[in-house]
Amino acid sequence: MAPTLGRRGFLGYLGTAAAGTAAGAGAGVVGARALDADEPTAVGVRRTGEAVSPWGAHQPGIAAHPGAVTELVALDLRPALHRAGDVEALARLMRVWTTDVEALTAGRGTPGDTAPWLATANADLTVTVGLGPRLFDEPWGLTPPRGFGRVPAMKHDRLDDAWSGGDLVAVVSGRDGTTVGHAVRRLVADAAPFAALRWRQTGSWQPHDAQGRPHTGRNLFGQVDGSANPRPGTDLFDQTVWVKDGLWAGGTTLVVRRIRMDLPTWDELTRSEQERSVGRDLATGAPLTGGGELDDVQLGAREEGRFVIAEKSHVRRSHPSTNGGRRIFRKGANYEAYVDGRAEAGLLFQSYQADLGDQFVPIQRTLDEADELNEWTTAVGSAEFAVPPGWREGEWMGQSVLA
Amino acid sequence: MAPTLGRRGFLGYLGTAAAGTAAGAGAGVVGARALDADEPTAVGVRRTGEAVSPWGAHQPGIAAHPGAVTELVALDLRPALHRAGDVEALARLMRVWTTDVEALTAGRGTPGDTAPWLATANADLTVTVGLGPRLFDEPWGLTPPRGFGRVPAMKHDRLDDAWSGGDLVAVVSGRDGTTVGHAVRRLVADAAPFAALRWRQTGSWQPHDAQGRPHTGRNLFGQVDGSANPRPGTDLFDQTVWVKDGLWAGGTTLVVRRIRMDLPTWDELTRSEQERSVGRDLATGAPLTGGGELDDVQLGAREEGRFVIAEKSHVRRSHPSTNGGRRIFRKGANYEAYVDGRAEAGLLFQSYQADLGDQFVPIQRTLDEADELNEWTTAVGSAEFAVPPGWREGEWMGQSVLA
Ligand code: HEM
Ligand code: HEM
Repeated sequence: MAPTLGRRGFLGYLGTAAAGTAAGAGAGVVGARALDADEPTAVGVRRTGEAVSPWGAHQPGIAAHPGAVTELVALDLRPALHRAGDVEALARLMRVWTTDVEALTAGRGTPGDTAPWLATANADLTVTVGLGPRLFDEPWGLTPPRGFGRVPAMKHDRLDDAWSGGDLVAVVSGRDGTTVGHAVRRLVADAAPFAALRWRQTGSWQPHDAQGRPHTGRNLFGQVDGSANPRPGTDLFDQTVWVKDGLWAGGTTLVVRRIRMDLPTWDELTRSEQERSVGRDLATGAPLTGGGELDDVQLGAREEGRFVIAEKSHVRRSHPSTNGGRRIFRKGANYEAYVDGRAEAGLLFQSYQADLGDQFVPIQRTLDEADELNEWTTAVGSAEFAVPPGWREGEWMGQSVLA
Repeated sequence: MAPTLGRRGFLGYLGTAAAGTAAGAGAGVVGARALDADEPTAVGVRRTGEAVSPWGAHQPGIAAHPGAVTELVALDLRPALHRAGDVEALARLMRVWTTDVEALTAGRGTPGDTAPWLATANADLTVTVGLGPRLFDEPWGLTPPRGFGRVPAMKHDRLDDAWSGGDLVAVVSGRDGTTVGHAVRRLVADAAPFAALRWRQTGSWQPHDAQGRPHTGRNLFGQVDGSANPRPGTDLFDQTVWVKDGLWAGGTTLVVRRIRMDLPTWDELTRSEQERSVGRDLATGAPLTGGGELDDVQLGAREEGRFVIAEKSHVRRSHPSTNGGRRIFRKGANYEAYVDGRAEAGLLFQSYQADLGDQFVPIQRTLDEADELNEWTTAVGSAEFAVPPGWREGEWMGQSVLA
C-alpha cells in the first residue's frame, strides 16, 4: 500500500493548495511539504498567527509549534457502541468532529454553537484526534498501526485511573485558554450521543522567548525541554513520527503521560546536582559536554575519568545510542492542580512515534530501569492513542482507517 | 490627609520616571499619569508587551488590560501571627513580596529562585496584592478603608468555604500560564514562614481580537463582558476605583466572586432570550436599544409598550441609575474545573471599588433581588480584600497602611 499512501498524502497537500479554497489559501497551510516554508523549532514549526489549515497528509497539530495552552481530553465510547463494535457510529462521530475542527480552526463556531465568538481566527488552534486501544479489540476488529497497544506497567508508575486510558483523544492547542476551552467543550458536547468525557487535562507552555521568537520552552523544573527532538521538516522527523505504509500511513501513535514533578524536593538540590541529573545546562539547555542547545550530547566525554554525562543521567538513558537508535518526538505542557488541598505540578508529556511498541516502550523501559529523574518524577496517568493521518477537504478524519 | 496622599501618589510616579532606573525607564511605566499614554479599553489599559513597572500611585494590575491568564491566590496568615496581631511580621512579608514582585514583573527570578528562566520579560506580568477582613479585627487593629468588610450573605449564594475568604490575595495576570504559575509558586513559597495557601483559582481571557488589537473580551456565555465599565484614565474611573483620602488613598477594595455558570441550560435558550436576559446584543455587545458596544443602554426605551431593556435584565438591575449612581470596575476570567468528575465552568469575577460597602454591596443586593441571570449563575465563592496603594522604588507594598 506504500505507493497509494504516498500518492494520497502528496495529493492531499497538493489538492488543498491547488484548490485554493478560501480557508486553505489564506490560512498558512501546514502539511508535509509546507513545513519547509516555516522555520522549524525543536518542538514544532512556528505558525504565523493565521489559522492553521486542518487539511494535509498529517494532522497538523503534531508538527506545529505548541500553543500557550494545550488541553488534552479523552472520551469513552458509549457501552452500546462497544457491545456492537459499531464502526458506523464511530465514523459518524468522526464526521461530526471533522466539521467541528474545520470550523474551529478557521475561527468559526461549530454547528449549533451558542458562543461562536469564542472561536477566534488568530488563535493558532490545532486539534489532533486519536483512537484508544479498546477500538482494536473485539468486537471492533479495527486494524491497529504496527506496534500499537498499551504501555506495559513500569515499576516507577503510580497510575491513577482518573488520568489514564480512553477510547478517543483530542489534543487541542492554541493561544489562549478561552478559545481552547471552548473548542474542547464543543467537541465534547457534539460527541455526547456517542461518547462521554473520561478525563480532561490542561497545561501551559511558553512557546516564545522574551523577544517573541518561537523557542523550545521550559518545563517546571526550569529545564529547556525538547531540544534533542527530531526536527519537524527533516527526514529524521518523518521517519520517527509517521507510519510509513499500510492502512495507517501518514498517521502516528501518541502516548500521553501525566508525570508528577516534585518541585519542593527538586528545589533542595544544588544547581550542579540538577544539571547532572539530566546532562544539560539549566540556563541554556546546552549539553554539559559543550556546544549550544541544539547540539547532541557527547556521551563518551570524560572528566577526571568519569563520564561528564552521568551514567544515570536522563539524556544518557533516553539517548538513541542507549536505545538501539530509537527515537520519539516529545511535546510537553506544564500543569498544576489542587487535589484535596494538595498542590500537584508536573508535565503533560506527549510522545509521538510511528511504532509505539518499538520506539516509546523500549525508551521508557530504559528510563524506568535507571534514570536519576525518577527520584523527582512519577507517572500518575498514562494513555495510548492511534492517530489517523490527515484528511483533505471533503474527506473526514479517520476515513482512511475506518471506511 | 488628602493633600499628602495626592502628592505622594504624584511623586510616586514622577519619582520613578525621573529616576530613570534601568527597569523603570525601559519598561513602559503604567501609573496614574502614564495611563493617558496608552489606549484605554473597557477592561483596562493596553500594555506594550514590555514589562509593566511595579511602581506608581496605584498597583498597576488593576487598571491594566487583562492578560490571557489570571491566577488568584489567597493565603491565611499563621495562627501565631493572628494571636499576636503581628503587624511587624506582616510588614516583613510585604517586604519579601515587594522584592519578588519587582523581580518577577521585570522578568527576573526571585531571590533563591531555582527556575528563574520561567520569569520572562515580555510576559506583561502584573501582581496585585490585598489584605483580607481578619486583619482589621482585634488584635491586629489595622484601620480599614471606609466601607470595607465582608459582603453580606445573598439569597442566591451557595458559597463554598474552599473558594471563600483569605487574609491575603495576590492577583497575578500575564501572557502565559507557565510565567503566571511560576510567579504564584514563588509568592506562595516565599510567604511560607508567614502564611499558608488557602485557595488558588485560575482563569483565562481573550484580551485581543482576531486582528491582535486589545478588546473587551467575552465570558463563557459568549457575552462581551466589561463594556459599561468606567474607562481607565478617566475621572469616572478614578472616582469609582481609588480611595480618595485618608490612610488608604490611592488604594481600593477588591471583591472576588467565583460565579458558576450553567452552560448546558443557558445553551437551551434562544438567542433572543439570551440577549433579553442581559439587555445587550450577543454578537457585538451593543445595547438592545442601539448604538455600539461602548454606548450606554437606554433604560427608558420602549417597544410595543414594553421596556426594550427588560425589567429584570442584568444591565437594568446593575445599571448606575438603578443603584443611586453607584458604579464598580469589573474584570473577569473564565474558569473551568473538574470537581469529582463533574464539569464546573464560570467566571472569576473581580470588582474594584473605593467603598465596598457603598458600591459593591448595594449593586450586588439589587442583582440578588431580581436579575434574570440568577437563573444560570450562582456565586460559589466570595472574598474581600483591601488593596493598598502603589509604592515607589525603595518603598514596599502596603507601607503607607502598615508602617
Ligand atoms: C517529567 C518528566 C521528564 C522531564 C522533566 C524530562 C526532561 C528532559 C530534559 C530536560 C531533556 C533534555 C533536553 C531535551 O532534549 O529535551 C530531556 C531529553 C529527553 N527525554 Fe525527557 N523528561 C521527562 C520524561 C521523559 C520521558 C517519559 C521520556 C520517554 C519515555 C523522555 C525521553 C527523552 C528523550 C528521548 C530525550 C532526548 C535525549 C537525547 O537524545 O539527548 N523524557 N528530557
Ligand atoms: C457570571 C455572572 C455575570 C455575568 C455573566 C455578567 C455579565 C454581564 C454582561 C454581559 C454585562 C453587559 C456588558 C458590560 O457592561 O459588561 C454586564 C454588565 C454589568 N454587570 Fe454583570 N455579569 C455577572 C455578574 C455580575 C455581578 C456579580 C455584578 C455586581 C455585583 C455585576 C455588575 C455589572 C454591572 C455594574 C454592569 C454594567 C451595567 C451598566 O452600567 O450597563 N455583574 N454583566
